[in-house]
Amino acid sequence: MKKFLAAAAILSLVSTAYAADAPSLTAAQKKTVDKIISYALDDDAAYEMLESLTTEVGPRLPGSEAEARGREWGAAKFKSLGLKNVRVETYPMPAWSRISEGAAIVSPFPQPLKVTALGKSVATPEGGVAAEVVRFATLDDLKRAPEGSLNGKIVFVDERLMRTQDGSGYGFVVANRSAAAVEGAKRGAIAALIRSVGTDSNRRNPHTGAMGYKDDVPKIPIGALSNPDADQLTRALAHAKGAVTVNLDLQTAVNENAVTGNVIGEIKGKSDCVILVGGHLDSWDLGTGAIDDGAGIAITTGAARILKRAIGKPQCTIRVVMWGAEEVGSYGGKGYAEDYKDELANHRLAAESDFGAGRVWRVGTNFTGASAEKAALFNEALRPLGVEPRKGAVFGGADIEPVIALGVPTLDLYQDGTDYFDLHHTPDDTFDKVDPADLKQNVAAWAVMLYVASELAGDLGRAPQAE
Amino acid sequence: MKKFLAAAAILSLVSTAYAADAPSLTAAQKKTVDKIISYALDDDAAYEMLESLTTEVGPRLPGSEAEARGREWGAAKFKSLGLKNVRVETYPMPAWSRISEGAAIVSPFPQPLKVTALGKSVATPEGGVAAEVVRFATLDDLKRAPEGSLNGKIVFVDERLMRTQDGSGYGFVVANRSAAAVEGAKRGAIAALIRSVGTDSNRRNPHTGAMGYKDDVPKIPIGALSNPDADQLTRALAHAKGAVTVNLDLQTAVNENAVTGNVIGEIKGKSDCVILVGGHLDSWDLGTGAIDDGAGIAITTGAARILKRAIGKPQCTIRVVMWGAEEVGSYGGKGYAEDYKDELANHRLAAESDFGAGRVWRVGTNFTGASAEKAALFNEALRPLGVEPRKGAVFGGADIEPVIALGVPTLDLYQDGTDYFDLHHTPDDTFDKVDPADLKQNVAAWAVMLYVASELAGDLGRAPQAE
Repeated sequence: MKKFLAAAAILSLVSTAYAADAPSLTAAQKKTVDKIISYALDDDAAYEMLESLTTEVGPRLPGSEAEARGREWGAAKFKSLGLKNVRVETYPMPAWSRISEGAAIVSPFPQPLKVTALGKSVATPEGGVAAEVVRFATLDDLKRAPEGSLNGKIVFVDERLMRTQDGSGYGFVVANRSAAAVEGAKRGAIAALIRSVGTDSNRRNPHTGAMGYKDDVPKIPIGALSNPDADQLTRALAHAKGAVTVNLDLQTAVNENAVTGNVIGEIKGKSDCVILVGGHLDSWDLGTGAIDDGAGIAITTGAARILKRAIGKPQCTIRVVMWGAEEVGSYGGKGYAEDYKDELANHRLAAESDFGAGRVWRVGTNFTGASAEKAALFNEALRPLGVEPRKGAVFGGADIEPVIALGVPTLDLYQDGTDYFDLHHTPDDTFDKVDPADLKQNVAAWAVMLYVASELAGDLGRAPQAE
Repeated sequence: MKKFLAAAAILSLVSTAYAADAPSLTAAQKKTVDKIISYALDDDAAYEMLESLTTEVGPRLPGSEAEARGREWGAAKFKSLGLKNVRVETYPMPAWSRISEGAAIVSPFPQPLKVTALGKSVATPEGGVAAEVVRFATLDDLKRAPEGSLNGKIVFVDERLMRTQDGSGYGFVVANRSAAAVEGAKRGAIAALIRSVGTDSNRRNPHTGAMGYKDDVPKIPIGALSNPDADQLTRALAHAKGAVTVNLDLQTAVNENAVTGNVIGEIKGKSDCVILVGGHLDSWDLGTGAIDDGAGIAITTGAARILKRAIGKPQCTIRVVMWGAEEVGSYGGKGYAEDYKDELANHRLAAESDFGAGRVWRVGTNFTGASAEKAALFNEALRPLGVEPRKGAVFGGADIEPVIALGVPTLDLYQDGTDYFDLHHTPDDTFDKVDPADLKQNVAAWAVMLYVASELAGDLGRAPQAE
């Protein structure tokens, strides 16, 4: 997951889930829902698919050879799982990669620090850049520092991500990944460090993630310290009589002529409507992309298969996409929106699973007008899985944001993200973190959602657009 | 902590804690115990000392420049805390160090694995050694493999450390650190991997620790995979149609002319008896040696100061030692035993804190003969802290094993080690893991123990010796 709730502010319409005249399920439909749930909770296919991906492909950096192997794996897996019309659609992109990274306090307390380069960071000179560290407790504090006040220094923004079930804390600090470098450079800094945007307070595994520069501001290298190392640097600053000097050595590279791509597979429907679901295939390089976002691929693929098993050929085509290069700019999602823009009127709904493998606990929609009350059908069908309706903003997902912007309605099956940012973008994003029972509950929720969207809800209108 | 319960089998005498005629505390003595406890539970000195060590010195590999800085820190700290007769006593040693390390599955599923070199491992050729991996679920399985059956292979011993409160699981698998290399090499292996000897099942931070070779067996390089990476390699072996090839690249070095040393400080006593306590100053290089064993130094130093504050000048000299180079062979402990062998008759008791920073929950002694029943005094005095008597084997500590072997009695204040092997010998052994309240309880237990040993128990006889 690259961004979270970033676009939420512009999609603030509330679904009228509890209108008195809201539609409801018939007894037969309820029975089908029960059948879908019982199939899903007894099916290991998603878990096995996730094990296969994380074991046989491993990390899948956007635009890398490993992501390309992932596409081969994905196409073969879709076919072996019975999806049809399987295809790979590629897009050019610049591919950033990590070569090596390290940091150390040079004086007065020489010792290594655990650091990782943020995605898209420029490199330091070979051997690193050594300079005095200036700490800011928050980004706001940095923004108040005068111009020139960081000349020749390493800026350190030490803001902490707080743990929340809905992941909302992320939105408050993820901006630091770009802003620490940009705001630091504006004031003369030659390199930047941030406290990892992650909730694990005691693992020395820093969190990476994409950053971005501004055209008119010097590009300086930026790395994230693990939470314990940010604590340690803060203590060193408190214990030192004078300056604390750190050497930051980040070696990175960009291949301007790389390729990413989407892997598409379908359960063909009776009519020409399309339900677009999926997760992203690429991952950061530090882990094996199990919760971000192999899980999303496995969940949506598993759900499409369960739907077919439970009801046979659906009304709408269920199109499952393994999106490419989400982490560095949603190249796959943007490419799809461009390539399919003339067919989007047939896209009844788009949804993405990209918040880990925790159980689904809430559902929200961005349906408007005459379609708004149809949210009640989803709410009712998902209730047996412990899913509560959520009123409020709906994001959808970074890969489907481009099609939502072109009018395709969306729906969020919110996952419990209490522990998500312990693992996200770190070496600890590995298969062992996934609870099989939680994964099955996700498959069940997605399969039920697909049933309602394809068979019961009919047209869902067009998504509201930003002013 | 290097070894645990290794020597326990030879010290199997049971203290007669509950004899009917066992000595007990007077009302005045109980009041002093209460005073010591209340002082200790309200004192931050140990926690601050540990913060100072881990921040201002950081990792302290045996024989390194960093360990030498640790000795300077230690002598200065003892003096500033009011200890007397502060001295540094050095010993020559060969110092092993880690230069770089890495591992990767080469085929059929190329991806990096998180590995760390075990202490004293020889290096691989530069760039590493690539070979087929052969997995054994246990060391016993490896021992049953025929000679020559691993020719040209990398042996992988995948045995798991189980979580126990008393750390007893460690004794069952720590031997793998040496035996995987020795038993693998005997059968033709050219390199060895083990599953980390650690209980954290989901951190990709491997556990290091010392290994040792046998003179008549080829020395092959050996590394430990993190638990998730051992899982991953096991899955790769299960998913692969043919061989799984791994490249292992461990670069290490030995400085044959290095130096370690003990830092000694004292609370001088009225008479010539000595109570010898301490922890070890050296640590592995991956973390900052907070729980292994900065905590032991802080606890014992803190306890000596609390005793003095509570009772004034004690009967016996409380000698606190920051031991050098415990992790690779207890060079400091052996040097002390040699240098002080003519004075050990005055050493009434030796004890070491080297099992982390978890609270003390049990006490055991190796007192024999007429002294055996004196254990009751310690049991009674420690009871207000929730410490229960333990009958059974007593180890003492790796650094004091040499003086115990020369007859000095010992006592174990067992700490709760449920989480100890999550952190031990990993990058995650850092200051943030230490609970201040638990640390204070340790200081209280050690201060109470010192009070009983110095003021109440009198002579404790001589330690039982192995046959």
